[in-house]
Amino acid sequence: MRVLVLGGDGYLGWPMSMYLALKGDDVGVLDNGIKRRWEKEIGGGPLIPIPPLPDRARMFGRRTGRRLSVYEGDLLNAVFVRRALEDFSPDAVVHFAEQPSAPYSMIDLEHASATQHNNVVGTLNLLFALRDICPSTHLVKLGTMGEYGTPNIDIEEGFLEVEHKGRKDRLPFPKQPGSFYHLSKVHDSHNIQFACRTWGLRSTDLNQGVVYGIQTEETLIDPNLGTSFHYDAVFGTVLNRFCVQAMIGEALTVYGTGGQHRGFINIRDTLKCVELALRHPPTQGEYRVFNQFTEVFGVADLAIRVQEAARELGVAVRIRSMENPRVESEKHYYNPVHRRLEELGLKPTLLSDELLGSMLRFLGDHRDSVKRERLDPDVNWRGSIPAPATT
Amino acid sequence: MRVLVLGGDGYLGWPMSMYLALKGDDVGVLDNGIKRRWEKEIGGGPLIPIPPLPDRARMFGRRTGRRLSVYEGDLLNAVFVRRALEDFSPDAVVHFAEQPSAPYSMIDLEHASATQHNNVVGTLNLLFALRDICPSTHLVKLGTMGEYGTPNIDIEEGFLEVEHKGRKDRLPFPKQPGSFYHLSKVHDSHNIQFACRTWGLRSTDLNQGVVYGIQTEETLIDPNLGTSFHYDAVFGTVLNRFCVQAMIGEALTVYGTGGQHRGFINIRDTLKCVELALRHPPTQGEYRVFNQFTEVFGVADLAIRVQEAARELGVAVRIRSMENPRVESEKHYYNPVHRRLEELGLKPTLLSDELLGSMLRFLGDHRDSVKRERLDPDVNWRGSIPAPATT
Repeated sequence: MRVLVLGGDGYLGWPMSMYLALKGDDVGVLDNGIKRRWEKEIGGGPLIPIPPLPDRARMFGRRTGRRLSVYEGDLLNAVFVRRALEDFSPDAVVHFAEQPSAPYSMIDLEHASATQHNNVVGTLNLLFALRDICPSTHLVKLGTMGEYGTPNIDIEEGFLEVEHKGRKDRLPFPKQPGSFYHLSKVHDSHNIQFACRTWGLRSTDLNQGVVYGIQTEETLIDPNLGTSFHYDAVFGTVLNRFCVQAMIGEALTVYGTGGQHRGFINIRDTLKCVELALRHPPTQGEYRVFNQFTEVFGVADLAIRVQEAARELGVAVRIRSMENPRVESEKHYYNPVHRRLEELGLKPTLLSDELLGSMLRFLGDHRDSVKRERLDPDVNWRGSIPAPATT
Repeated sequence: MRVLVLGGDGYLGWPMSMYLALKGDDVGVLDNGIKRRWEKEIGGGPLIPIPPLPDRARMFGRRTGRRLSVYEGDLLNAVFVRRALEDFSPDAVVHFAEQPSAPYSMIDLEHASATQHNNVVGTLNLLFALRDICPSTHLVKLGTMGEYGTPNIDIEEGFLEVEHKGRKDRLPFPKQPGSFYHLSKVHDSHNIQFACRTWGLRSTDLNQGVVYGIQTEETLIDPNLGTSFHYDAVFGTVLNRFCVQAMIGEALTVYGTGGQHRGFINIRDTLKCVELALRHPPTQGEYRVFNQFTEVFGVADLAIRVQEAARELGVAVRIRSMENPRVESEKHYYNPVHRRLEELGLKPTLLSDELLGSMLRFLGDHRDSVKRERLDPDVNWRGSIPAPATT
């Protein structure tokens, strides 16, 4: 299968590209490198520096004999998008190429607007190119569980069977996203669904939970093939950040009461889920949604899990509650369904103490590289705190 | 009350501005005139030429003694938006300032992308300016009934009481919009709802039906104070277009079977509805939705109504079905609720044969100004027909 991975330089896109290439797929890797510039803007950056995309694609080729075709360019450039699809002729496109951070989108107007423009217009460029060049190509799009918010009913996979005043329909599940980033994903979902209905495209929208983890089978092949691991308050996800805080002797910072519950997934399972979507494509014209996570955790409970795993390694860790910089429910019902990927064969990698221990040991070895000043949030959802200074 | 009308040069914005000024409100009229350029681009334009905005604001002042403060500029310019709010200090903002045409948004990628960028980013600029400058100002936003699509259940006003697996919640009504324009309004609705929830702004989202009509009390004051009436296949709405076709001896063109049902509203009622929303503002932090239409018609039935009204005037009119350039259901359930504006006191102006007759007589008087070549659609939802040439 020919698969073009958009955003192939990122935390998920890079191991995804290697994973598929090693499964025997022909893989193209497309990226414009802008994520690296966003990281610099907020004074962040990956824990361990990563080589430029063309370099690591070459290194991967030398180590494995598998070629990754690199396309350097921007989804906002519609001509580039068309040329890449014409040149690569993909059977499927996996679309990770979006601004992925809720806090980044909440810095100020400029960042909110840039996030929605980048994500929505980039995806529009892609949808029109698919329509005109390869309408049977399967679009696998990364969405987020955060599109749903925290309704007081079970969250189904994309659609809800509604009975209302004696009539029935299957309707898109109502969305209550919690940041301009999450909103951009909701906008994308509506645009993609329209393109499938109107033009007969086919797409799988993967509403992914919070991803954690550092290594996959592929990143372990060579130290130069690691993925970009983020732990800062803007681009790091909560469990990754807790593990870093634990190993540098900082308190684990829980926003508010920590009663927020979210779906979580191991980075290795992300790769397996996307592969399952690719191997079992939707029919032409179909828009389908899979909820891509394996477990639900409360944030405060997760802090305790990390604390306990650190104690096993002889490391004493404090937990500190701080005023929540986000506007979100800290006590809410949460029972999202995640059945369809399991039905396709996913065997979840659950969060074990062994897994936490191995993450903590790895991070302990790299503790000197951590920028402590990037761990505490300086973006407030209410807009009262100025944007972080550019470094 | 101080009311700033965004898009005050348009079909609805202009009579709205005059209406409120004559009710004693202090009215600011903001527009960048881009709609006039879009009309030229597709070879269209209003049936009767309209003077530039500053000129007609002056004429209105001379005739009525009521001043309209004109702000010429673009919502895409965030600095301009902030300055206008700072200068005018509105109690309420009425937001008509969007690209308003579904066919225009479906011309090609460039137009789809420009529509979503213009509407979504313009509204984001406005939301941040409201947050920072006047967070208690009431935002009255024009949405569309087309946000809902045609579900197989009754369409409620913005929200749906859901009972699912034994639990209950009141959730945003699921959206199934039918063009990139309608999608842009759905994106706006999600962004505005988020701003109300997160920043405590307050907003009324008016999901308006298809508007028809030529005159209001205010446009009749002086021939120079008329509103921009459109009948072409891009910017004209269906009933206005049928009336023009009838009076120039063209067949009324019904897309497909004409079984499409939509909510309709007289332009005079638009003014009354917006006023009702203004006089009864939501509480701080509230996001509410009113369905703003008064009657449901099937398109084919509407053609027959126009045919009969023309016959009364001694004009024989044919009805012609043509291949539907849109992708939409031509046979569907449609029962949208429209209760909240009536509860606030709206007395609907229903479509009477007298009203149709007066529209037809007016258009008969101006039949020589009609550009016949702009009546047939040349934008196809499937993308197979090229964009109309620039004139």
